[in-house]
Amino acid sequence: MKGNAFDPNCPTRLVLDRIGDKWSVLVVLSLSDGPRRFTQLRDMIGGVTPKVLTQTLRAMERDGLLTRRVFAEVPPRVEYSLTPLGQSLQTPIGAIAEWAEENVEAVIAARERTPV
Amino acid sequence: MKGNAFDPNCPTRLVLDRIGDKWSVLVVLSLSDGPRRFTQLRDMIGGVTPKVLTQTLRAMERDGLLTRRVFAEVPPRVEYSLTPLGQSLQTPIGAIAEWAEENVEAVIAARERTPV
Repeated sequence: MKGNAFDPNCPTRLVLDRIGDKWSVLVVLSLSDGPRRFTQLRDMIGGVTPKVLTQTLRAMERDGLLTRRVFAEVPPRVEYSLTPLGQSLQTPIGAIAEWAEENVEAVIAARERTPV
Repeated sequence: MKGNAFDPNCPTRLVLDRIGDKWSVLVVLSLSDGPRRFTQLRDMIGGVTPKVLTQTLRAMERDGLLTRRVFAEVPPRVEYSLTPLGQSLQTPIGAIAEWAEENVEAVIAARERTPV
């Protein structure tokens, strides 16, 4: 069964909320070159707090977009990586991020023209 | 200048928030076949309240993504349409919505497997 984003009762809406979140977008982009540790993700994603990053990673794991792998080392090493489902998001999310980066000046210019 | 979504001081983040909002996504999709009146948009986008739709349309107009045209009729007719900037969002946003509709079952199945 395919979802319908226009139907308020379709869970597609919940999925849109998850993948529309900017932190999820940045996590998908950060994991595009392979597994990363928590501290690496935190350093790559400027401005994210550890709390928000933890919440984002947990929600994405619950949604089947990434996996968390714990290595029995001292200190324990934890790595996050995209599942095949998460990898399938790379192309559409990459296109959104690219649009945002390319058109940020046009959007800011429009905001400055419009009186609040 | 191109933006950088990983830089917390770059306004690309604000743009990601706007275009990540599910109502903005649905408005872009609803206007893909041409101009629509407020009531048409409200009927197309199931479950949106008039207040939230008004806020979304105003924010998108301020960001230069759509225009609002008032026709001097009785009663006055108001039509919304995408600007060229808004039209350029159709492809990436369409890809995100399609991903959500196609993968909603996989995401829901993952959520049901994971204890909260």
